[in-house]
Amino acid sequence: MAITLYELVGRDDLRFSPYCWRTRFALAHKGLDFDTVPVRFADKQAIAFSGQERVPVICDGDRTVADSWSIACYLDEAYPDLPPLFASARERAMARFVNTWSDLQVNPRFILLVVRDVYDNIDERDREYFLESREKRFGTTLDALHAARDERLPEARAALDPVRAVLADQPYISGDEPGYADYILMGTCQWIRIVSPYRIVEPDDPVHEWRERMLGLFDGMAAEVAALGP
Amino acid sequence: MAITLYELVGRDDLRFSPYCWRTRFALAHKGLDFDTVPVRFADKQAIAFSGQERVPVICDGDRTVADSWSIACYLDEAYPDLPPLFASARERAMARFVNTWSDLQVNPRFILLVVRDVYDNIDERDREYFLESREKRFGTTLDALHAARDERLPEARAALDPVRAVLADQPYISGDEPGYADYILMGTCQWIRIVSPYRIVEPDDPVHEWRERMLGLFDGMAAEVAALGP
Repeated sequence: MAITLYELVGRDDLRFSPYCWRTRFALAHKGLDFDTVPVRFADKQAIAFSGQERVPVICDGDRTVADSWSIACYLDEAYPDLPPLFASARERAMARFVNTWSDLQVNPRFILLVVRDVYDNIDERDREYFLESREKRFGTTLDALHAARDERLPEARAALDPVRAVLADQPYISGDEPGYADYILMGTCQWIRIVSPYRIVEPDDPVHEWRERMLGLFDGMAAEVAALGP
Repeated sequence: MAITLYELVGRDDLRFSPYCWRTRFALAHKGLDFDTVPVRFADKQAIAFSGQERVPVICDGDRTVADSWSIACYLDEAYPDLPPLFASARERAMARFVNTWSDLQVNPRFILLVVRDVYDNIDERDREYFLESREKRFGTTLDALHAARDERLPEARAALDPVRAVLADQPYISGDEPGYADYILMGTCQWIRIVSPYRIVEPDDPVHEWRERMLGLFDGMAAEVAALGP
């Protein structure tokens, strides 16, 4: 029986959550089939069965697992004979670091650049909830953030400097082959690519070249979805 | 024959280079004996034989290797039967990410806080060279940087947030046991601890607790050297 992935959905069936993309890549890496159930931002009821309010959530037979990191760990435990996301405890520990680095030092910078694009591309029924919660969180209007994004772009790009530096020596963050550390950051890139025409890195940036490689993985899984961005 | 480590030295034989500490930890992890040769900042001649101007440099029989990262990779290649720094190519690739993250997003923030302390603790013969090169690099005086350090401290502490977050789940960046990812950041902590009385993290910070564990490794190798800091 296929795994069910509950994931965020916007207008026109756009699936843009960076955290849900981490899980999509993890499932593809393991070679596991999955069906998806779209969940709107404000529709907390749809995943209430999971005991918490955020996607991604997966259901695998009797098991329900929430949170992209917990899902990755679960998949390796439940399917040890499929290609490992983490071949050792140390690999998992260091991928955890990439995960928290992305959550705390990358995504918070990029959301400031594209939050109004997210707003523009969510389901109409979510707009009031989203606008109110985000303007409260950021202490300013989404329009003001949008207007300042060119000014903030260099700082966001600089947050990716450590990735740029490793990509000078190796094709993926995980080395010669892509791995969960790459899926983490690709979630961010895919999120931005789907909701925004904004160019966050130039075509000659090693991060862009890496992203192109990531778009091609798993028969172009990430490339084939509708996207507004370059 | 023991390996020779050429490392930075300040006044009163202080050995404070963060990059040389990475190598000290790597050598200790492998269980390799080493002798040290102190090198002053401005004494480029002492390591000219290595074909470049920066420490750490190691000599191991006929081999000379410069740069802490290259040295770590060399030690695993040359001594595959000793405890590995990187048990897989993927572990090495992700440690490389921690290395560039530390170089680009951690050390540049902390140097602003302690650069005058570094100046105060280098060999007198290096002071003119150091003052001129650093004031040029930072575009301001060391005294001005020193005066602004309380103001800059929150940003430097925030650079460590991803580490703080992983330490909530695991005792070391590398997981249950310390590894090269830990040695990288411990180099930074040890550098600051040796040259500066400034408290960069509070005693109840998980980073402080981790640092205390790191100070105890290898029979207290890092704890036993003279240090001005807490």
